[in-house]
Formats: sequence, C-alpha cells, structure tokens
Amino acid sequence: MAKRVVTLGEIMLRLSTPDHKRILQSESFDVHYGGGEANVAIAVSNYGLQGVFVSKLPENPIGQSAVNHLRKFGVETNHILRGGDRMGVYYVESGASIRSSQVVYDRKDSSFAKANANEFDFEKILEGADWFHVSGITPAISKEAASMAESALKIAKSKGITTSFDLNIRKKMWTADQAAPVITSLWKYVDVAIGLEKDFFAALGHPLGDFDYAGKSNVKTFEDAIHQLQSRFGFKYFASTIRMNQSASYNELAGFISDGKQFHVTKKYDLHIVDRVGSGDSFASGLIYGLIAGKSMQDAAEFGVAASALKHTFPGDTNYATIQEIESLIHSGVGANVQR
Amino acid sequence: MAKRVVTLGEIMLRLSTPDHKRILQSESFDVHYGGGEANVAIAVSNYGLQGVFVSKLPENPIGQSAVNHLRKFGVETNHILRGGDRMGVYYVESGASIRSSQVVYDRKDSSFAKANANEFDFEKILEGADWFHVSGITPAISKEAASMAESALKIAKSKGITTSFDLNIRKKMWTADQAAPVITSLWKYVDVAIGLEKDFFAALGHPLGDFDYAGKSNVKTFEDAIHQLQSRFGFKYFASTIRMNQSASYNELAGFISDGKQFHVTKKYDLHIVDRVGSGDSFASGLIYGLIAGKSMQDAAEFGVAASALKHTFPGDTNYATIQEIESLIHSGVGANVQR
Amino acid sequence: MAKRVVTLGEIMLRLSTPDHKRILQSESFDVHYGGGEANVAIAVSNYGLQGVFVSKLPENPIGQSAVNHLRKFGVETNHILRGGDRMGVYYVESGASIRSSQVVYDRKDSSFAKANANEFDFEKILEGADWFHVSGITPAISKEAASMAESALKIAKSKGITTSFDLNIRKKMWTADQAAPVITSLWKYVDVAIGLEKDFFAALGHPLGDFDYAGKSNVKTFEDAIHQLQSRFGFKYFASTIRMNQSASYNELAGFISDGKQFHVTKKYDLHIVDRVGSGDSFASGLIYGLIAGKSMQDAAEFGVAASALKHTFPGDTNYATIQEIESLIHSGVGANVQR
Amino acid sequence: MAKRVVTLGEIMLRLSTPDHKRILQSESFDVHYGGGEANVAIAVSNYGLQGVFVSKLPENPIGQSAVNHLRKFGVETNHILRGGDRMGVYYVESGASIRSSQVVYDRKDSSFAKANANEFDFEKILEGADWFHVSGITPAISKEAASMAESALKIAKSKGITTSFDLNIRKKMWTADQAAPVITSLWKYVDVAIGLEKDFFAALGHPLGDFDYAGKSNVKTFEDAIHQLQSRFGFKYFASTIRMNQSASYNELAGFISDGKQFHVTKKYDLHIVDRVGSGDSFASGLIYGLIAGKSMQDAAEFGVAASALKHTFPGDTNYATIQEIESLIHSGVGANVQR
Amino acid sequence: MAKRVVTLGEIMLRLSTPDHKRILQSESFDVHYGGGEANVAIAVSNYGLQGVFVSKLPENPIGQSAVNHLRKFGVETNHILRGGDRMGVYYVESGASIRSSQVVYDRKDSSFAKANANEFDFEKILEGADWFHVSGITPAISKEAASMAESALKIAKSKGITTSFDLNIRKKMWTADQAAPVITSLWKYVDVAIGLEKDFFAALGHPLGDFDYAGKSNVKTFEDAIHQLQSRFGFKYFASTIRMNQSASYNELAGFISDGKQFHVTKKYDLHIVDRVGSGDSFASGLIYGLIAGKSMQDAAEFGVAASALKHTFPGDTNYATIQEIESLIHSGVGANVQR
Amino acid sequence: MAKRVVTLGEIMLRLSTPDHKRILQSESFDVHYGGGEANVAIAVSNYGLQGVFVSKLPENPIGQSAVNHLRKFGVETNHILRGGDRMGVYYVESGASIRSSQVVYDRKDSSFAKANANEFDFEKILEGADWFHVSGITPAISKEAASMAESALKIAKSKGITTSFDLNIRKKMWTADQAAPVITSLWKYVDVAIGLEKDFFAALGHPLGDFDYAGKSNVKTFEDAIHQLQSRFGFKYFASTIRMNQSASYNELAGFISDGKQFHVTKKYDLHIVDRVGSGDSFASGLIYGLIAGKSMQDAAEFGVAASALKHTFPGDTNYATIQEIESLIHSGVGANVQR
Repeated sequence: MAKRVVTLGEIMLRLSTPDHKRILQSESFDVHYGGGEANVAIAVSNYGLQGVFVSKLPENPIGQSAVNHLRKFGVETNHILRGGDRMGVYYVESGASIRSSQVVYDRKDSSFAKANANEFDFEKILEGADWFHVSGITPAISKEAASMAESALKIAKSKGITTSFDLNIRKKMWTADQAAPVITSLWKYVDVAIGLEKDFFAALGHPLGDFDYAGKSNVKTFEDAIHQLQSRFGFKYFASTIRMNQSASYNELAGFISDGKQFHVTKKYDLHIVDRVGSGDSFASGLIYGLIAGKSMQDAAEFGVAASALKHTFPGDTNYATIQEIESLIHSGVGANVQR
Repeated sequence: MAKRVVTLGEIMLRLSTPDHKRILQSESFDVHYGGGEANVAIAVSNYGLQGVFVSKLPENPIGQSAVNHLRKFGVETNHILRGGDRMGVYYVESGASIRSSQVVYDRKDSSFAKANANEFDFEKILEGADWFHVSGITPAISKEAASMAESALKIAKSKGITTSFDLNIRKKMWTADQAAPVITSLWKYVDVAIGLEKDFFAALGHPLGDFDYAGKSNVKTFEDAIHQLQSRFGFKYFASTIRMNQSASYNELAGFISDGKQFHVTKKYDLHIVDRVGSGDSFASGLIYGLIAGKSMQDAAEFGVAASALKHTFPGDTNYATIQEIESLIHSGVGANVQR
Repeated sequence: MAKRVVTLGEIMLRLSTPDHKRILQSESFDVHYGGGEANVAIAVSNYGLQGVFVSKLPENPIGQSAVNHLRKFGVETNHILRGGDRMGVYYVESGASIRSSQVVYDRKDSSFAKANANEFDFEKILEGADWFHVSGITPAISKEAASMAESALKIAKSKGITTSFDLNIRKKMWTADQAAPVITSLWKYVDVAIGLEKDFFAALGHPLGDFDYAGKSNVKTFEDAIHQLQSRFGFKYFASTIRMNQSASYNELAGFISDGKQFHVTKKYDLHIVDRVGSGDSFASGLIYGLIAGKSMQDAAEFGVAASALKHTFPGDTNYATIQEIESLIHSGVGANVQR
Repeated sequence: MAKRVVTLGEIMLRLSTPDHKRILQSESFDVHYGGGEANVAIAVSNYGLQGVFVSKLPENPIGQSAVNHLRKFGVETNHILRGGDRMGVYYVESGASIRSSQVVYDRKDSSFAKANANEFDFEKILEGADWFHVSGITPAISKEAASMAESALKIAKSKGITTSFDLNIRKKMWTADQAAPVITSLWKYVDVAIGLEKDFFAALGHPLGDFDYAGKSNVKTFEDAIHQLQSRFGFKYFASTIRMNQSASYNELAGFISDGKQFHVTKKYDLHIVDRVGSGDSFASGLIYGLIAGKSMQDAAEFGVAASALKHTFPGDTNYATIQEIESLIHSGVGANVQR
Repeated sequence: MAKRVVTLGEIMLRLSTPDHKRILQSESFDVHYGGGEANVAIAVSNYGLQGVFVSKLPENPIGQSAVNHLRKFGVETNHILRGGDRMGVYYVESGASIRSSQVVYDRKDSSFAKANANEFDFEKILEGADWFHVSGITPAISKEAASMAESALKIAKSKGITTSFDLNIRKKMWTADQAAPVITSLWKYVDVAIGLEKDFFAALGHPLGDFDYAGKSNVKTFEDAIHQLQSRFGFKYFASTIRMNQSASYNELAGFISDGKQFHVTKKYDLHIVDRVGSGDSFASGLIYGLIAGKSMQDAAEFGVAASALKHTFPGDTNYATIQEIESLIHSGVGANVQR
Repeated sequence: MAKRVVTLGEIMLRLSTPDHKRILQSESFDVHYGGGEANVAIAVSNYGLQGVFVSKLPENPIGQSAVNHLRKFGVETNHILRGGDRMGVYYVESGASIRSSQVVYDRKDSSFAKANANEFDFEKILEGADWFHVSGITPAISKEAASMAESALKIAKSKGITTSFDLNIRKKMWTADQAAPVITSLWKYVDVAIGLEKDFFAALGHPLGDFDYAGKSNVKTFEDAIHQLQSRFGFKYFASTIRMNQSASYNELAGFISDGKQFHVTKKYDLHIVDRVGSGDSFASGLIYGLIAGKSMQDAAEFGVAASALKHTFPGDTNYATIQEIESLIHSGVGANVQR
C-alpha cells in the first residue's frame, strides 16, 4: 500500500495571462489551481505515493474545481473542509527576459484564512500517515493557519511521522519581523528543512554572507553554518535549490543537501523557462519522494532538483514529470532528442 | 458641449466561461469589466454624452484595467479614487436553453465596499452635471456605499440635477428585509425610477398582483398602481423593461414608461440571447439618453428598450450599439439582412 | 457510505471540431474523454454515489488522461486494466440546424476491444456493489467484450445486484442482424432496461408500429407492447427518452417508464442544443440515481429526463448538472433567470 | 474527364470577428478567403467538376494564401494573374438575433480592381470550358472589371459555352443608377440568370410589386413577369432563392426556377444561422452542378437550395457540403440525428 | 497639470500571426493598433504626461477601434479628424531565430495619406503644448503628410515648443533618394534628433564608417561626426539605440546620447524577444519623458533604453512598462525573480 | 514544365499539444498533417517543382483533410488511393529546454499500412518522373509497404530516374535487427543517400566511432568511411545534417555532403526551436531541389541545411520557407532585422 504524505495549506485559483501578456492587455486568463502544499500532494501522488491534502474551500464551483483538480491526480481530498466565503485568487503575469513575472495576490479572507484551527482533527487526519509537509506560506496566511501548522507538526512529531517544512518566505504576505518569531517557533518539530539558507539565517537575525558556488569561495564556512543550524534545531536534513538567476527566461538550477555532517551539491541544469511557479514545491516533493523511496540523501536531492528543473517546462503550478523522466534527466542530461 | 451624466457605483472584474462551459470545466475565463452604473456611464458616452464614473479601485493592474476599459469609451475617470485592497470579482457561467446563467460573486471587502463615504466630495463631483444615476446595487454593497448613494442623490437634487435610480434587487447581496428600508429612503430624491414594478411594491410591503400584458387583463389596475407609486414618491417617470422569459436562450423583451398620467408600452422584441448581463443597464442608459436628448417619454422608452434588446447580442456587459443602430431597430425592426 | 455503481465499457478520446466547423476546416480539435458507461460512472459520482468504472486502457498519456478525467469526478479507477496498443478515438463534427452531427469512429483494435474477458475478475470487482450497468455498445465492440458483458451481468444477477442495460444500438458498429442474437441473450440478466422501444422490438424481429404521443393514438397498444416485453424478459422497469427531433439545434425531450403495470410519461422540455452527445447516458444515470435514492418510478424517470435535458447544454460527454439543478428544473421549469 | 466551370471575379481576405463580437471589441479576427465567383469555383470542385478561377492577386503572402485556399479544393489556379498592389479585404461582424451582420469593405484599388481587361486572354482561358459564371459584383468593382465580364461572357457565348450570371447587387459598391446600364448590357450573353427578381426589375426601372408566397397572392402575376423578363433577354433559366427573413439568427429559405414556361418553387428550410455569407453563391453553384449533371430544372433548383441551406451551417464563405449530404437533406429533411 | 506632448502621424491596424505562424498558415490574426507617433503618445501618457495624437481616421469601426485604443491609455484624441476611405493595415509575421520578422504593408491611400495638410490647424493644435514629436515615417506617407510634418514642426519651433524627430527610414515606403531631400529639409526645426546615425549620414550623402562599440575602435571619430552633425543642424540632443543583432529571438540593446559636447553610452541589455515592433518608439518616448521630467541627458537616455528593452517583452506595439519598472530595470538589472 | 518529384509514403494526422503543454493537461490539440515523404512532396512544390505524393488514405473526412493539405501547396494527389479503415495518428508533445519532445504513435493498421503493394502501378506512376524519393519510415510500416518501396525504387532505377532515400530510423517502429536487412537491401537502387551516418553503419553492423567536428579529430577517418560506404553501394551522393544537440529549445545545425571523392561541410546555424519535427525532411527536399536545379553538390547541401534550419521556426511539419528566404539565409546569415 502506498505511503501516505499529508500536506496542509491553501490552494488558490491562479489566473495567468497568456503569451507573456500584461494583465492590462489580457482579454482572457488561463485557469490553474495551485498552492505550495497542494502542489506537493499532487507531485507525490504522481510518483505513486498517496498524497493527502488538508485545507478548507468554499462550497461553490470555484472551490469544487480545486477539489477536482486534486482528485484528477489521485490526491485524497476527504480532509478538505467545505465552507467559508471565498477562495484565494492570484494573478500571474508571466515575465520574459528582463521583465520579472508579477504575482498579484487577492487571497485575504479566504475560507482557509478564516478557518478555525480546531475545525481540523489532526490526530485523526494524521492516522496512518508516513510523512507530513507544510510550508512557510501557511503560517503567513493567518494566526489560525499558523496555529494549525504548529499543531499538525506537533502531533506528527509525537506520532513519529517524518515532517518537512519548506520556508517559502513571501514578502507580499508578511514582513521579515512578523515572520521570524512564528517561523522559528515551528522548527523544533521539523525533520527535513527546505528553503533558501539566507532566509533561514535572516529569520534568526544572522544574515549569511554571500556564498559563491562557482568561485568555490567560502564553501567551508557555508557548510559549517548549515551544520550549526541543523544541530541547533535538530533538522535531520537541510536542503535547498541553488538558483543562479540570469533572467525571467533563463536560469541555472542546482541544489544541495546536508545531513549535518555531509554536504552534497547536485548537478546543475541550464533552463529555458516556460513557467517557473511551483518549481520550489517540485524540489520539495521530489526530495520527499526520494527519501521515502529509500534513496541516499544525495540521490534524493538529485531527484528533487531534476524534478524541479522539469517543472520549469510545464505551464501551470502542477509538475507533470514522471519518475522515469526525472531519472532519465539525471542520468542522460539534456532532453534534446525527439522521442519517437 | 456634451451633457454630463455622473454615475456612482462599483465596477468589477467579470470572469466568464467561454462557449457555455461550466466553471468546473473551464480552462480559461474571458475577461470583462462591468457593473451597473459603470455600464451606464459607458453607454451614454457611446451616445455622445459625457459619462463620468465615480468609484474606488485598487492601485493594481486589475484596478487599472477597469479604468482603461472606461477610458476606452471616453468615460471621465478623474473621480475614481485609487486605494484599498481588492477589486470585486464575479464569475459568470453562461447558461443555455433550460439552464440558467449562474453568477458567483466574490465582491466582499472590495476597495469600493470599504471606501468611506466622505472620501467623495459630491458637491465638487456633481458640479456642472446634468444627470446623476445610481442603482440599488450600490446601497447593497455596504453601509458606507448606501450613505454615498444617499448623499450624492441629495446633493444632486439640491443642485437641480435630474436623478435616476435603477432598483436592481440582487438576492445574493441582501434579503428583502434588509433592502426595503434602505432602498425606500432614497426614493424621495429620485426623478426617474427604473426597475421591476413588483420589486418596488415588494420594498413597500405591497406585493403587486400578476399582470398579464398578453391577455391585457388588469391593465388598468396595474397602471393605477404605478401612478399611485409615482405620486407618493414624486417620480417624474417610472419605467421598466417587461421580460417574458422563455429560456436562457430566448426572451421576449418590451418595456413601459409612465409619467404618472400617461402610460406607454413599447414595441416587443424576440431575442436570441448571446449575453444578457447588462441589458437592464442598457435600458436605463437608453432612457436617460432619450430624455436628455429631448425625446418624448414614449420615444425615450422605445430607445431604452431597443438599446437593451441589442445588448443581448454583445458578449460582455458593455453595450456597443450606436444611436443609428438603435433607431434603425426601432423603425425597421428585425436586423435580418447583411449590411453590405 | 455511498452506494457503489459499477459500470463496464470503453472510454474513448473524443476529438471535436470547435464552433460548428467541419473536420475539413478545423485547425484544432477540442479534447474530451467519453463513452456510454464511463459517462454513467461520472454522473452517478456527481450525485454522491460511488461510481466504479471497469475497462482497459493503454499505458500511454492518452490512456492516463482518460483515467485522470474519471478521477476528477471521484470515479474509482482501480479496476481499469492498463495495457494493449491504443485507445479508441472518435471525431465529432457538431452539426447545426439542418446539418446532422457526424461521428467518425476510429475505435478498432483498442486496448478494450482486444482485452480478454478473463482478464477481469468480476466476482471480485462486483464485491459490495449495489448496481451494475452496461450498455449495448460494449457487446458491439468485440466478442470478448460481449463475453465480459455477459459474465458481469450474470455474476451481478447471482449476487443480487440490480442490473441495468442501455440498448444504444450503433449502426456504424454492427448490423441489426449481428446485434440481435447477442443483445437479446443478455436481457435475461437485466432488471432495468433502457433504450428506444423500437430498437428492442427490432432486435426481437417485431417492428413496433409508430406511436404518436402528441396525437395520443395507439397509446394503449404501445403500453401493452412494452408490458409484454417486460413480462417476457423479466425487466422490472423499462424506460426510455422520447425525442421529438426537429433539427440539430432544437429538440423536444420527454421520457417514459413502465413497471409492467403502470406507465408514466414525463414532462417535456424544449431544448436548444449545445452538445447532445451523452444525453442518453444522462438519462440512464439519472434514472439509476433516482431508483437507488428510493424515488418512485415516476420521480426517477423525471429525474433522468431532466438530467438528460440539462446535458444538452454542456459541451462534451460529461454531465455537470447537480442534483439541485435537476430538481429545480423539474419543479420550476425553464431556467430563464440569471441566478445572482 | 470532369466538366470545366470557369468563373471570373475577385477573391478577398475576409476578417471575421469571433463569437458575435463587434469589431470594436475584437482582439483577433478569424481569417477566411472568399468572393462570389471564387466560392462557386470551390463548390463545383467539391461536387466533382473542375472549377477554374480567373482573377488577379498580389505577389505577397496574402495573395498566395488565397491561391492556396482555392487549390485546397482542387480549383485550377493557372489563370490567376499575380501582380498589383493589394488584395481586397472585408471585415465581417457576425450579427445575432435583431442585430444585422455588418460588412465593412476595404477593397478599393485591389490588384483585380486595377487589372487591365486585356491582361486576360479569354479565348484561351475558355478553351475546353463547359460553363462560364460571373456575378454582378465583378462589373461593380471597376470599369476594367466590367469590361472583363463582358468580354468573357461574349466569348463564352460565341463558343457555345453555357453562361450564368448571379445579380448580387451590393449597395455599398455602387448606386442603382450606376449599376443599371452596366448590368443590363450584360444580360444578352446570359443563359442562366440568378438573383433576386426585384433587383432585376429594379435594374430595368420596373419595380416589381410585393409577392406573398405564403398567402399565395399574385402568384400568377409574378410568374408572368418572370417569364416576360426571360423572353426579353433570352434567359434559358431564371432562378433565385426566396428568403423569408426573420432575424440574423433565423431564416426560412426556399427558391424557385423558371424556364420561361414552367415555374417551380422548391422545398423550404427553417435555418438556424451559423454564417450566412456565401449562401447565395451556394445556390448558384448547386444549380450549376445540377444542370451540368443533367438534372431536371426542378431537381437542379432543389439541389441549389439545399446546398444553400447547408451553407448557413458552416463558418466562412466556403460550402463544405457534399453531394450526398445535399441529396440526403432534400430527401430526408432535417438533419436531427447524430450520424454514428 | 500634466505636460502636453503632441505627436502627428498615422495609426494603423496591425494584424499579427500568432505563435510564429506564417501568414500562409494562419487561421486567425491578432489585432493591434499601432504606429510610430501613436506609440509615443501612448507611452508618454503611461508616464503621466498628456499625450495628444493628431491624425485622420475613417468613420468606420476600424477607425473607431484605433481611437478607442488611444483613449484607453488616456491619450487625447480630439484632434483626430474622421473621414476618408480606409485605415492603413500592416501584417506582421513574427520571426524566430534565423527567420526575420516580415511586415507586409497595405497602407496606401489611407485616410491619413490622403488628408490635406490644411485640414489641420496646427496653430490651435499646438496651443499649450510642451513638446512636439514626429517621425520620418510621416513624411514618407504622402506629400501632404510631409507638408503637415513641416508646418507642424515650423509652428512648434516658432512657439518655442521643444521638437523631436525620429528618423525611422522605411525602405518599403520610399527609396533613399526620395527620402533624403524631404527628410533633411525638416532638420532645421528639430531640437532632439533620434535614430540610427548611419541613416542620418546617408541622408546627407556621407556614409559613416563602421563603428565598433565592443572594440572601441574609432570612437573618437564617431563622436566627432555626431557632434558636427549636431552643430550643422542645431540638434540640441542626438540620441539612438545601439542594437547588436544576433537573431530574431535575441538582441543586445544599448543606446547613446550626445549634446554636441558630451557623449554618453548607456547600459546594455541582453534581450529575449517577445515582440520587437515599437521598441524604437519606446526609446523615443522614454527619452522625451526623461528630458521633460528634468533628468540629465544621461539619465534620460538610460530611461529610454530601459523602456525600449522592456518593450521587447510585450506583444503588440504598445509599451506597457511603468516608470517604476523602468527605473527598477536601470538600477537592479535583469528581472529574474518572481515578484510575490 | 516543372520537374516531377514522386514520393511514396504515409501521411498522418498529427495532434500537437499547444504551448508546451503535456497531453495530460491539454484541452485541445493543434491539427497538422505530415509524414516524411509527404513533407518532401510539399517542400519541392513550394520550390516550383511538381511534387507527386503516392499513398493510400481512408475515404473519410480525416483522409480528405490530408489530401486537401497536400493540394493546398500544389502537390499532385491523383495517385493517392482511397480506402481502408483509418489514417495513422501521432500525438506530439512539444518539449522545452531539458524536456524532450514526445511522440506517441497510433499508426498501426492504417490504410497505407494495410495497402497491398500491387494496388500501385509504379510503371505508370513514375512515367515522366524526374526523381523518386522514399524514406526508411515506409519499409518500417509493413511488409507490403517495404515491398512497395522496393518495387518503386527498382522501377525508378530501371527508368533512369534519380532516386533518393532518407534513412530515418524510428526506434518506436522497429528494432535495429528488424530494420537492417530490409533497409540495406534497398540501397542498391539508391542514388542519393541521406541520413545519419551512424545509422547507416549500424545497419551494416559496423558502428562508426565518434566524430568530433568541433575538435576536427578523426575527420579523415570519417570521410574515408563515408567514401567506402558510397563505393560499396554506389551512392552518387551521401549527405546528412549534423546536429549538435544542446536542448529541446536550442540546437546547432550543419550538414555535409560527399560524392565519394570530395567532402563538404556546410555553414552552421544556431537555432532557437519553434518546432523541429520535419526538419530532416526539409534537408532532403532542399538537397533534392538543389541537385535538380543544377547546383553544385556544395550549394545543394547548403540549400538543404538552410531550408532545414528555417523549418525549425515554423509550427507543424510543413516547411514554408521560400527559395528567396533560403538563399538569403545562406548569404546573409541570421535573420535579425524586421523586413519593413
């Protein structure tokens, strides 16, 4: 029977302008449904695990469409409560070249944001679970959501369920000062910490110096800092993507993982970007899958980075890459030939 | 110089499913911008008057798109305040045949709903205006919006500006009990009352008996009731469309107007519906134009009904009919020939 | 726990030309996934029952897309085998007015058509089922498929599971002579027979005389014939839609049901057609739901016909109508008002 | 070997707004290529004759696209000259219901309009031809085009080739006074005259009284007038569609044909209109095919009217109906069943 | 009150093939409205200045659509005359990689081309103007248009209004020999000269030697030549983009400005091109804005080049970049992060 | 009179996902018609030769659409037999960056695959032909198709018609072991051999060592091997593209040609890929055109490679490049300027 990966968070209606159009010139929006933890639940289901998504959605066709999107990939949706006023919406204007992609959030007062923490019975929800995942977006949504995240992490921990946390700082949702105490208080329940190291250190008030992967400068210092972070909070693994930004159209993507002792940097991919949104979630879900599947920490990180790399080629938040495609990318590299 | 028609209300982002699709099956939404009073401001500008739209919109690309939509038709947008959190959204699922069109509102806490009545200086806004128009949707939005509507109507009245009010009861926005006291308190400032007579009487707690235009039964009783309503509230004109619903695809549409003495029923049009939303606003704007242009009350009502009839053939809230097309429909009837 | 409705058949990729275009002028095809019994599994799941679809699909992205489409609505897909060469395809050219819709089948040698009857363990598949449904399309696909249909019906019958059979004669799939012996041999296992009465009698070699519902001629004779058919094969219920065709754009739709004693003709709906394909399956699934929900035979047939009527307004094979919409259509009639 | 039907005229780029949009709200135009005589050349090729289209088109991709459109259906394009400045364009705004379809012409100074009559060697072009067809649009384009039409008709006549002429008065191209002398001077070369009888009589300065097919009033008078017209100009056949306009969405369509002695009125079709442009050309080409194929004048007219009726169901100018579909419509009537 | 920037020229309907399609394979065209000076009027309005566009457009829906497009951005359209036969059209086939974009013009005999110079009262039009801009396209359109450009420049100069001129040589509109005398005769009225230096020198019959920015060869010579040009014609500023073409998909873009003494080369941007048309106009409008806003000549040129760079990322002629985005690009460089 | 180039093979319906979507997320498919030899017939017709395509297609609208696609470009379709059950279909999922494009074939049992070799009278078909071309796909389709290829090649050879053969190994169609004997047995009839050298040697059981064009290593050895291959099988010319793959979005493309004595490597192009499918066929058709047009072997190969390079910029299988564009690319290189 498939291992159960429970995730908690918000799924939103995403309205994207087509063909690099501005919102100001768009006569139609492409419809997607996405959100950090929902994307993870879908991706792990695509890898053969049983994703379970926990949230609250309104009793209207928009909410039902989000449920249907999750079911399409086999995600279990029994623990999604229905009620409240509205679903969060976010508008995505896909950038190009020197123009950044823009996200306009309209997520305030969503059903999930206004849900009460005690509407969810995490003891029951987490029964039989093998993994629990939440991101730093959830506590940013509302106090109640932060409280849900904490209680779910705590209960998971108490049940011996592996927990992962993807930092995901969103500057349009809260300030660094607002985020720091909330975020850091959750870390004690976390087994696998994911996210940009600088954001972790910023939350602790210790800005990390620049780290130059290419020049190999300060690598030792950097690894030491990560290892200290891990030993302080008890993170079994700390992992992140390394994105060397060039433009809204091109990126180089790699990643690293540390178990507090060893430190592994993955292969690097040169990416021509179709849609970058959701690629961080793809790293998280690939890593989770790798670790559940019993891969070495190196191989799990490679799987996560390759999954994340492939996400950049799919429109929408959802990662459609298969295990076979991800493995093939890791082993054979660039996907240049037509498969026929 | 063009006569100034000032309207006050909310303009929203309308997301419509294409090709009669359900929201549940829609991979894209068509984008329109509309709202009762905004539609009126646009239509009268299309007829050569100077529409002026008063509202509040967020400082983001969605809000700017609404401003741009209004400017496209020459509507004056100087009195639109910018600020607040969000723009109201409504989803429209276009019905067909026996399936009703569905509207899902997500308009709570919009910039306009949360605007403060005293952010608007109606003394100044209404300077030089020839007409002021508001609908029953505006007071339904929030207490502050109701207060804006009242103070705008009061000031308009005091300046001798003609005022019109389109009842537009929206059951998804408030109950009959909530609406009645608010709505009726505005009527003393109204010169031209527009809307379904049964909703007017319902607001007064006097349900009107059924009126059978085809069978001509009770016509006298009906006219008497309208005349009494007018004399009680001092409506110079009372006018409404008469919609004989057949299905979501077909309607028969006529209208009537009364000056408290005379009663005129217009021509009737058989309509195959492309998009019905906004057709009531088209009646209001056609009537306003007709009265401003010095037409007889009969001719003004005929203009309003013909404009409304044509609206059913345009996708979106906006009425693209020209004066010439409306006149031609009134005089020549059905538009069957290809104009080439 | 939801009642289980198991259906057996083929789901195909449907490629439809948009906007009434011919295949000859179409630069794109709209993608749907549908098939008689799959449509039933989806619709009953939409009504809160647990649809279970049994079939065989290829291990490729087209096959997976069909699985995902079913999962989207909560249909159980565990009993869909994967393998074989290809998925059946059918092209639909949507007619209009005096032009019939055209279906071009390319379904030969599909994974399901070439599946072996003994690949399916119906004893296990039907465990805990409350209803089993199959249509006359399945035995038309291949000898093995006919054999599956028979063995599933037989086992269902032996387990006391209610069985339904929708005749669905497809002239492009087999001739009347080929169909008759296969079809009639299945009837002894059937509790609820659905389909055009004339096709039933034709299969028996007894063409039924014309029956004029409007003129009420021969009604008694017709009812007698139906009752005899039922008593001969032991159909608990016999039900069908009555379609009074006018054109590819308009239809009148009603239905009848008989329990061998009573005979009930439903309300009639005037339909403006968006997409007619799948409307027969909607009648079947509505009827099944009604009978499972404990409605009277009259009410079950009314539910089926109203569901079928609403199907004509959705593009694609899938019926998106909700219980509430169907009940509302039955009770309030035409859906002319905008719901806002 | 297929009979050769030569047609002379202009083919234009047609830009149509999608989904009943106004030009004012259209963010894209659908691209079609059409023109009266080009449409005839395509339709007769679809019926197995060899259509030959004679025209002049610019040496640019727009011109080439028109050539490619013709070749797609097997039309011979060797006699299309290339050169000149531009291709004519016309914008079509598809009406609905009470809103007429609008055509905006931008065809002035096209390559064809500015072509010199002696650029075409009609002696050679018409070698081996069985039929020559031109419409009243061609002489309206320019003096040179009128001269081409005359010399082609004259040479065809001298070679014993059957000639047909479709009146097609376009008020946006010329006035009645401009048209009359040009048009009537061509009639002496015409064997088969097609078009609205009232336009024929108007060109002669004898307005024809109203003719009421339904009420059967004045039928005799009408037939007499047609017969006199024929005997005066030597038209072997006079034929026309009879369109009983109801709206831009619905029409009733029939037709008649006269050989100067007998008068035949065809079956009538109730039409729900997808795209009406080109339906007159469809009547002409169906009639031409019928007469070439040796049908009786009645059957040829029935073929023409049924072909024209089917044209109303295809988007674009081109008639995609097959002989089999046309025959089937004539014999079985409305196309209500799905063909599967 | 906003500074007034008046521009004179032609706005055309632009029909673009979607998705890199050829015209030969395009079943639809995307609709844009654009033209050099119209693009400038829109862009400066987007920067908070009052753009005023002067032109002539036909009284038809195509002409009205162009007016509406301008109004959408707040451009003043009172001085657009209405009349004449047609609006210019140009077809754009968007290239890719090694395939150049193709423009097919169909602009002959447009309403603007055939307008009479004395239809425009430039004394009145330029009242209260702060800046007048015209490009080298306008005098290429017709003799009358050249005469308009001259008289507008002359009157602007006499009123002390700053004038700018963007050279914009179009080889498909006129030859170098035709252009030279017309173009150079306008220069005496120009304060700010914009355009490729080699085209300026070519117009004077002094071809400029190659200038290698990368290799820094001949820089001094180049600067001297520019300075001499300026002193000869009295250009206060001379500015241009520097485009280092790589392919239809990629460009490097920089710019320079000279005040006759100093010479400033801007930052360089690596561009992945979405749509390049209109990027020159974006440079001009950014420069104009910068100079009006009181920036240094360096900063104004940087603003122009960054605005131009961003234009390459928007489909259509219109530049949707905001002041904030342009400033941010200048200061932070590549727009790689998602703004959320 | 144009030289006749006869090609034999299968044309299929190609269904492509738009905008880099996966099949799993695609709500519509773009429709193209293509196949190796059909693509060659079209391209040579675009170059002014008379392409003749020989195949078998079903008598249904899908088959007719393929015929119409060929006719559009002037390809002679008289020798396409009609009959059989179905047309082959292939689904193309366009990759991006590190994600390979995927082809899903559904071509089994197509009309062509099941055609009988003796249905084609190649003696007659090849009468008057100047060139015969077939690819390695045709013998892979079925035994009968292999037999057709052989008999056509043999007869062509006997008539002194130049023959070309494009190797085109498709791993999803047959294994190397299945392919080798069939393929190599055809080579004795081939004048111009086209395709990857390593596939030729693999078919002979002699894997060719790696050849490094950039490093210029082993060039002599490579050329010797090619020359030996040519002398063994009597290939007058051996030519191939050289693709230096980087990703699904970028390629470097060059080519070479050998006459058994001389060896010529062409210019290299850096390609940003819109659609790569059909680019090999473009090389073949460009080479064929070059040789027929009497170009030197170097110039013919340059023409082929430039044609192939341009194909990467067109969506669909069809090459829309003109002779002028190809020549211009060869001589001026990258197509960076807008042609206006």
